[in-house]
Amino acid sequence: MSLNTFGHIFRVTTWGESHGPALGATVDGVPPGVEVDEAQLQHWLDKRKPGQNKYTTQRREPDAVRILSGTFEGRTTGTPVQLLIENTDQRSKDYGDITQKFRPGHADITYFQKYGIRDYRGGGRSSARETAARVAAGGLARAALNALAPGLEIRGYMVQMGPRKADPARYDDAQIDQNPFWCPDAETADDWAGYLDDLRKSGDSVGAVIEVVARGVPAGLGAPVYGKLDTDLAAAMMSINAVKGVEIGEGMAAAALTGSQNADEIFMSNDGPRYSSNHAGGILGGISTGQDVVVRFAVKPTSSILTPRKTITLSGEQTEIVTKGRHDPCVGIRAVPVGEAMMACVLLDHLLLHRGQIGDAGGRIGG
Amino acid sequence: MSLNTFGHIFRVTTWGESHGPALGATVDGVPPGVEVDEAQLQHWLDKRKPGQNKYTTQRREPDAVRILSGTFEGRTTGTPVQLLIENTDQRSKDYGDITQKFRPGHADITYFQKYGIRDYRGGGRSSARETAARVAAGGLARAALNALAPGLEIRGYMVQMGPRKADPARYDDAQIDQNPFWCPDAETADDWAGYLDDLRKSGDSVGAVIEVVARGVPAGLGAPVYGKLDTDLAAAMMSINAVKGVEIGEGMAAAALTGSQNADEIFMSNDGPRYSSNHAGGILGGISTGQDVVVRFAVKPTSSILTPRKTITLSGEQTEIVTKGRHDPCVGIRAVPVGEAMMACVLLDHLLLHRGQIGDAGGRIGG
Amino acid sequence: MSLNTFGHIFRVTTWGESHGPALGATVDGVPPGVEVDEAQLQHWLDKRKPGQNKYTTQRREPDAVRILSGTFEGRTTGTPVQLLIENTDQRSKDYGDITQKFRPGHADITYFQKYGIRDYRGGGRSSARETAARVAAGGLARAALNALAPGLEIRGYMVQMGPRKADPARYDDAQIDQNPFWCPDAETADDWAGYLDDLRKSGDSVGAVIEVVARGVPAGLGAPVYGKLDTDLAAAMMSINAVKGVEIGEGMAAAALTGSQNADEIFMSNDGPRYSSNHAGGILGGISTGQDVVVRFAVKPTSSILTPRKTITLSGEQTEIVTKGRHDPCVGIRAVPVGEAMMACVLLDHLLLHRGQIGDAGGRIGG
Amino acid sequence: MSLNTFGHIFRVTTWGESHGPALGATVDGVPPGVEVDEAQLQHWLDKRKPGQNKYTTQRREPDAVRILSGTFEGRTTGTPVQLLIENTDQRSKDYGDITQKFRPGHADITYFQKYGIRDYRGGGRSSARETAARVAAGGLARAALNALAPGLEIRGYMVQMGPRKADPARYDDAQIDQNPFWCPDAETADDWAGYLDDLRKSGDSVGAVIEVVARGVPAGLGAPVYGKLDTDLAAAMMSINAVKGVEIGEGMAAAALTGSQNADEIFMSNDGPRYSSNHAGGILGGISTGQDVVVRFAVKPTSSILTPRKTITLSGEQTEIVTKGRHDPCVGIRAVPVGEAMMACVLLDHLLLHRGQIGDAGGRIGG
Repeated sequence: MSLNTFGHIFRVTTWGESHGPALGATVDGVPPGVEVDEAQLQHWLDKRKPGQNKYTTQRREPDAVRILSGTFEGRTTGTPVQLLIENTDQRSKDYGDITQKFRPGHADITYFQKYGIRDYRGGGRSSARETAARVAAGGLARAALNALAPGLEIRGYMVQMGPRKADPARYDDAQIDQNPFWCPDAETADDWAGYLDDLRKSGDSVGAVIEVVARGVPAGLGAPVYGKLDTDLAAAMMSINAVKGVEIGEGMAAAALTGSQNADEIFMSNDGPRYSSNHAGGILGGISTGQDVVVRFAVKPTSSILTPRKTITLSGEQTEIVTKGRHDPCVGIRAVPVGEAMMACVLLDHLLLHRGQIGDAGGRIGG
Repeated sequence: MSLNTFGHIFRVTTWGESHGPALGATVDGVPPGVEVDEAQLQHWLDKRKPGQNKYTTQRREPDAVRILSGTFEGRTTGTPVQLLIENTDQRSKDYGDITQKFRPGHADITYFQKYGIRDYRGGGRSSARETAARVAAGGLARAALNALAPGLEIRGYMVQMGPRKADPARYDDAQIDQNPFWCPDAETADDWAGYLDDLRKSGDSVGAVIEVVARGVPAGLGAPVYGKLDTDLAAAMMSINAVKGVEIGEGMAAAALTGSQNADEIFMSNDGPRYSSNHAGGILGGISTGQDVVVRFAVKPTSSILTPRKTITLSGEQTEIVTKGRHDPCVGIRAVPVGEAMMACVLLDHLLLHRGQIGDAGGRIGG
Repeated sequence: MSLNTFGHIFRVTTWGESHGPALGATVDGVPPGVEVDEAQLQHWLDKRKPGQNKYTTQRREPDAVRILSGTFEGRTTGTPVQLLIENTDQRSKDYGDITQKFRPGHADITYFQKYGIRDYRGGGRSSARETAARVAAGGLARAALNALAPGLEIRGYMVQMGPRKADPARYDDAQIDQNPFWCPDAETADDWAGYLDDLRKSGDSVGAVIEVVARGVPAGLGAPVYGKLDTDLAAAMMSINAVKGVEIGEGMAAAALTGSQNADEIFMSNDGPRYSSNHAGGILGGISTGQDVVVRFAVKPTSSILTPRKTITLSGEQTEIVTKGRHDPCVGIRAVPVGEAMMACVLLDHLLLHRGQIGDAGGRIGG
Repeated sequence: MSLNTFGHIFRVTTWGESHGPALGATVDGVPPGVEVDEAQLQHWLDKRKPGQNKYTTQRREPDAVRILSGTFEGRTTGTPVQLLIENTDQRSKDYGDITQKFRPGHADITYFQKYGIRDYRGGGRSSARETAARVAAGGLARAALNALAPGLEIRGYMVQMGPRKADPARYDDAQIDQNPFWCPDAETADDWAGYLDDLRKSGDSVGAVIEVVARGVPAGLGAPVYGKLDTDLAAAMMSINAVKGVEIGEGMAAAALTGSQNADEIFMSNDGPRYSSNHAGGILGGISTGQDVVVRFAVKPTSSILTPRKTITLSGEQTEIVTKGRHDPCVGIRAVPVGEAMMACVLLDHLLLHRGQIGDAGGRIGG
């Protein structure tokens, strides 16, 4: 991983700014022969697309993705795939306050301090719009996973909004697509609707926790001791805008457990090893166990709110700012498909890494 | 980052197994002219060394580090530094059960599934003994930071053991070295002593949360959008044995906040920008703000406990295992210097990355 | 370097096929604040552009480059720069023979053997059209070098066509742009004109040797022992289509010399060390000396010729092929700006690497 | 590749100085289950070992290699392999002139200019002693190739010493080990013996050309367009001390050929495609064809000679130097096993890369 590239073999480099002509992903290391077309990728982009309901920014972007290279007659060729998304609704010509003031909680001040120059239009490169490119690349990763690891399924959903948590006892995959929050718990989704409506009207915002689960992951993926599967997942999720925490399996709660509580005992079944529980989140020693891989991440509340906040200007003067414009009251919602995309990229990358270094040399229990 | 290497420019590759002849770190990209000797590195290794009190494993290892290359007359030359630590107390010739059984919660089963071969002696490569090499490399990173970023200080400490949390109101840096838990809160340290003693005697273990803080970090470090400072810190900490969660600033708790609660307002001071609070943990958009960089990570309880657990054998038979031997009842304790070392490596790496790409082109607020 | 990316810090990833909708370069690690616009890049692309005279392919491509990201108000921002060039003249809808036959000397057969799928349109990814993206990226590297290493100049020219060598005694920089061969020796240029005309009419092709010289390179660039300046230059030049040999300074001829003949003696001047000669090509131990950096590379003759050649089909049948179409009788001509671009990319990359690891710690003789 | 690491998946990082306590190679990405022991590696090191005859340096080093990690019960485990070679005969305590003077043709001056500090003992890191670590790593690569690509054979030999070339018509593999020059042409070996004896006595030195051939390389290895097989071979060979030129197949001579002369026509055989000739050196478009992979490189004459040469001191004063000590009159001799080692590393790396990205998706001609 370096600068704007993610992955070891399946390498995704995203590029582009919020209000530039376009953004996209240059994807290298794509396995050849994978069936993929723009419609498949568009399916995932449409999940992330802004302006779909009152809970997300009203910026209107079709987020139409074009494949400019790396496929031939509907299949990947093994050469780099360029995924391009044009920006169409940059709207504001007048950027007003933000050309001179740093918005608290945003990267305005740090980009300036680092680079000495800042594309202030919509946050430039630091805008969450960059994640559209990730979702496109994730779609490509999913297409490859379909071919190389049939049965592997990735599902993301929101499990907490502000202080309000969904109830695992009520989780139902079928509910996830039935509400605007990708919440697996219908009752909680209703509750969130009212809660977020109130926040939105008051001009405030709120954080969220997203969980992403991958089922059907083969045992053996991960490359200790620094290219671990959990290491790369932590990096992948933490690299998403506004993420402040990442957990695998028990996560932070593992600290409160004793060894006897935390043990996932092992049993033999006809299909290989099975476990009594999954505190580990499907990863031991950085390598997948074959159980569900379970990752959670926390997204902070959108920093753009209507309450005036103290800040300073480029020339160092004290001032105040109110961030108007089109913003998500809970950016966590649109982070769901992004988390899924990152999971897909990491798993494909490790599948290719494993195949490269190990081939068929992995171990089979019971002969 | 790939396989056993960590870092972009300051690249640390660790090698070695728990019961092999030696282990170490090959460190490339070291800035030249840095004063360093074995005694300096030993200082940090001694903090992590096993067998120092009844709360850590009774394995006796001097963990004496040798510098085999990359220095001349007490200064680094810019060439790779090889840090070697011999294993002296491998003791057990009889590995008993673990040659055929997989210990639950350990990487025995996944290493076998991945590689088809497993060095079962003390966990081989998956042993936390590997972290000795990290601490040595971290000592080297600290020496370089002393030269390149004077005033930068890194401090780690334990803030939670099992369900028992230290009280931030009582944090006192001076206490950290005064108890065997690196706890900044003396009252809590006393409490933990009794608690852990009981656990140890019952043959059980417990998890912990470690916090690492870096003060005096210059603004502008970090390389969006994938080589972010928080991304690399998340990867660094998650790569440590037994870590299941990583948080920056507010961490997972950010999910429960509203935008107005979470805002770090900005003020101008004679020394540059100052903030009303540090929910962000010193990082905005993946770049350091100049505030304290604050990271926490959760370490799961040691999986080696005296309670018998269900497991299977290499040949797939159902069985039970009790993990005897010399183990840490709370591995989190010895993770404190490891977390500090990873913080040092990441900060130095980003300092060099920044200097390479940016040089003097960064921005100064107020002219 | 991995797959389609070149460089350590200044990383150029090219993408695109000969007859796809577009091709381009994703450039990461660009220093911020560099003045650059499309016209500057176009200047270099126009040197490589096909169809400029009877000695190059008659395919008509404007090779108009667009900057899609990474600049703001005419300066780079430090974020990835996407350089896009649309393909406009793909012409042939009927690819005839080459859909089923492998052209000898081309990558048709190896791409198929590797990937199992092949974009046969104009050679797909293996077409020298890919080098347009390199030239665009090289233009960006030059802009950055202008800012960071004023006085550094890069010049490429052809020194041999087929068996006919230019005479160093007659080299004159002013001549290079005065003939279609970028030949610094006017007399030889005239000779080549007749020679190549005859070859072209006979449907044959011929090889060439290109020399690229960089003047004003600071001493100290290069990162032993594998990221050497000469190592990276060798890789850069060998990666260009049809290149079969690379030389630094004396090159292959160094083998025939004795130590006393080959020595570049060192003298002190007011401006620092000076050398009696430059057998080393400006590089000692992989690090620049401050002398001219001199690289040469040999380009094989175009494999597309009108003489029928034996080959086989996809289904393994014996057959013959004549490669019709629009081809360069001496591809070496258009390799000149490509070699210059690669030199620019390598030097900028090493300048940034040096600044990152070394900063101001380098040594000053007599100081 | 970065700084002191070579390879994409099979990554070799060498470390150590000429007169430090030890040197070695940290090898990551090693496939698991490969049978290897120290004796196997020693076999290759013994070929490179100094002091074996009057034509190589009289420094006495056993070059005994130890495997410190990454193997268990005689097989690789997939974890990093540390190969350590102790320096035993550093002899000179008095480094005399070279502490203050820069030896012309050596890296003394550039290491100082780059790093501001220089380990002058025996050339420090820039000494060809570093290549012992490469040979050890190459031995490991060969062991893995034996397992993964049975039938693949690598052979290096010297084809030119000074202006005197061996005659391909007399090449006989059986001769290579029969003379101190690894010359495949017995008659030429005799001639070189007298020639080099005279040079050695006069205190002068001479250059050489080495050819390395790999037979039985599967078709399809190589990763266009920058991770090409020929690109990586060029980098590998150019990174060896004193190398000034690298050629693939026809090499620089390709420039003098016409397209009709240079074509390797393709024929179908029972064993797949066969070629009428091998001008390409076994590589088309950066990918192996299945023919012999043929690389040549030129080694400059040793710069350490008894003739006084002009140079300067650290403080910038003009002076003269005579390089006494134990030196190779033709370092090319000992570069032969080094070239073989680099070939082995590159081929294994590309075999793993190919297996990772492509798996079984490669194409089979004729169905």
